[in-house]
Amino acid sequence: MSALSPTLELACDLIRRPSVTPVDEGCQALMMQRLSEVGFTVEPMRIEDVDNFWAIRGGEGPVLCFAGHTDVVPTGPVVSWAHGPFDAKVDDQGMLRGRGAADMKGSLAAMVVAVERFVVAYPQHKGAIAFLITSDEEGPAVHGTRAVIERLAARQQRLDWCIVGEPSSTTLLGDVVKNGRRGSLGGTLVIKGVQGHVAYPHLAKNPIHLAAPALAELAAEHWDDGNDFFPPTSFQISNLNAGTGATNVVPGTLTALFNFRFSTESTVEQLQARTRAILDRHGLNYDVDWSLSGLPFLTEPGDLLDAVAGAIADVTGRTTTPSTSGGTSDGRFIATLGTQVVELGPVNATIHQVDEHVLASDLDLLTDVYYQTLVNLLA
Amino acid sequence: MSALSPTLELACDLIRRPSVTPVDEGCQALMMQRLSEVGFTVEPMRIEDVDNFWAIRGGEGPVLCFAGHTDVVPTGPVVSWAHGPFDAKVDDQGMLRGRGAADMKGSLAAMVVAVERFVVAYPQHKGAIAFLITSDEEGPAVHGTRAVIERLAARQQRLDWCIVGEPSSTTLLGDVVKNGRRGSLGGTLVIKGVQGHVAYPHLAKNPIHLAAPALAELAAEHWDDGNDFFPPTSFQISNLNAGTGATNVVPGTLTALFNFRFSTESTVEQLQARTRAILDRHGLNYDVDWSLSGLPFLTEPGDLLDAVAGAIADVTGRTTTPSTSGGTSDGRFIATLGTQVVELGPVNATIHQVDEHVLASDLDLLTDVYYQTLVNLLA
Ligand SMILES: [Zn+2]
Ligand SMILES: [Zn+2]
Repeated sequence: MSALSPTLELACDLIRRPSVTPVDEGCQALMMQRLSEVGFTVEPMRIEDVDNFWAIRGGEGPVLCFAGHTDVVPTGPVVSWAHGPFDAKVDDQGMLRGRGAADMKGSLAAMVVAVERFVVAYPQHKGAIAFLITSDEEGPAVHGTRAVIERLAARQQRLDWCIVGEPSSTTLLGDVVKNGRRGSLGGTLVIKGVQGHVAYPHLAKNPIHLAAPALAELAAEHWDDGNDFFPPTSFQISNLNAGTGATNVVPGTLTALFNFRFSTESTVEQLQARTRAILDRHGLNYDVDWSLSGLPFLTEPGDLLDAVAGAIADVTGRTTTPSTSGGTSDGRFIATLGTQVVELGPVNATIHQVDEHVLASDLDLLTDVYYQTLVNLLA
Repeated sequence: MSALSPTLELACDLIRRPSVTPVDEGCQALMMQRLSEVGFTVEPMRIEDVDNFWAIRGGEGPVLCFAGHTDVVPTGPVVSWAHGPFDAKVDDQGMLRGRGAADMKGSLAAMVVAVERFVVAYPQHKGAIAFLITSDEEGPAVHGTRAVIERLAARQQRLDWCIVGEPSSTTLLGDVVKNGRRGSLGGTLVIKGVQGHVAYPHLAKNPIHLAAPALAELAAEHWDDGNDFFPPTSFQISNLNAGTGATNVVPGTLTALFNFRFSTESTVEQLQARTRAILDRHGLNYDVDWSLSGLPFLTEPGDLLDAVAGAIADVTGRTTTPSTSGGTSDGRFIATLGTQVVELGPVNATIHQVDEHVLASDLDLLTDVYYQTLVNLLA
């Protein structure tokens, strides 16, 4: 086998460190070492049990930050893997295999190598280049990016543009970038009835019977139309439970867990009010506990999207599609600084699965795309 | 305290035997001893792990059978009881206290004492008197009355009238007798969707959302009007479950356990067909597993109801109300022989509860009512 490219060498080094969330296993030390060698000021930020770091190189002017995570999701049963999950290797089909190959140690390696090449070629680049790296994106994500952003906000760190290395591509490298994410609003609904015996239904109030028409209406509700950037807001009930298992008891309560994935066309307050209005219209006795896991964010077309789309076109010949679909990401925390945020990384087909892998040559292409983006914004 | 009546003495003897279902603890031996002393032929029928007995006295002609159970439901936490659940006693409010006082060792004592008195007064009574006693009415009820009835049917035992000692009275002794019971038909409904992630609802089919309108329609359905003897058929969902607990997963299936309590105006086949029609109309992909726990039975006004109502009027001055409400009872098995079946016993306010008790003097009244019924039918 021919020698690996610098990006693939570094990706393998990172994958061999079994950094199952929230453990970092020295991944960040390796990245900090490489960055400090090319002129970055690095600042480890361990917060509670989470390793994070911030690194910056440059002076006055706009700041372009690369963001990502060194932690990976658990492997599941190791025997299910064709290759050991932490035995990184490029196989004879040209696939880089291992946990984190796609999400997102491949991206981290591409960022570091692209930046190394860029600062050699453009030692007097404009503005500044930064890295914001956490080891808790796959876990609770409380002491990771969110906490680092709070510190950066407190010291008024300028942060114009951010590229998050999340695997955004669906079929071919660069076919999709994420320029926003929907918000996520959860609720725990408890509908109260009166417990009793199925033989004496007139003495009971069955919360399942009371709830069914209201749940049907919530499920059928059209919340908004979305907009140019977001699909319509969606509502899903993920869990529904009532009853003790006994077949002759009318239960006293019904519990439903539900979740909104919402566009910028609906606010949290609107969704809460409309949910309550439907429940009230059905005359239900209920409680709802709300939990907001993330507001939506959106990066409209502008400098960053242009630079990224141009780089993808130059390197791959492809026209990228901006998308806001999918789950939440750490981008939602970074966007609170007013930063333009785009997620750009390799194909996500195998992330979080057994036998996670990515086309090795895509990581070299990704390195070139990151490099060209740096050129477009800071050369 | 004055000496207890023979009925209360025997009731206390029975309560002191902790015959938690399906254990008999010698209750039946005591009853068989007493009955054989007054000329009964007794026949223990242990079937699998359940003690039962059949006893009969008399010759040709109509057979009046007393039926009941020696097993009791568990006590729950004994510390919650004001008196020990198996320390039978009549307290200074005149209450007989203990597990089984109302359901149904008080009735068993009243039957035995009434019959003892009757055969002394009318040694040459018409027809025959019988007892059918089980120790598994509160449990699975498979090897109890149902199995004994199968044996009696196989040998073509005549059985014209049956009085089951279940506590039928609601406020005052004899105010209500049960002359039938609704049928009970259970179902386990599994509605199938397609599991997925809440962020990608278009790739999933949420069975909760699919099911809600159909469940609402089932809950609102008017199944029948009942008739002179039965309230309308009722439908209750006792358990509803979907989801794994994870709040970001759209579940793949929803399971609902439901139960019909049905009158003689609807058949099992009709209820099944109408349920399927509603599910089909909503285009659901589903399975239903049916379990019939009891067909309805009805004893229309006739010899037995007249004899019982007359006895109650003679002894208490009360006009009894025949009713078919409430849960199922072993009466459903006995009625399959073509027998007229009536349930008549003490006030059921505390059955299956902590501090179960019954007015002691009501058991003496009940003895008189059983005695007078014997006179009305067999003297
Ligand atoms: Zn990731
Ligand atoms: Zn009972």
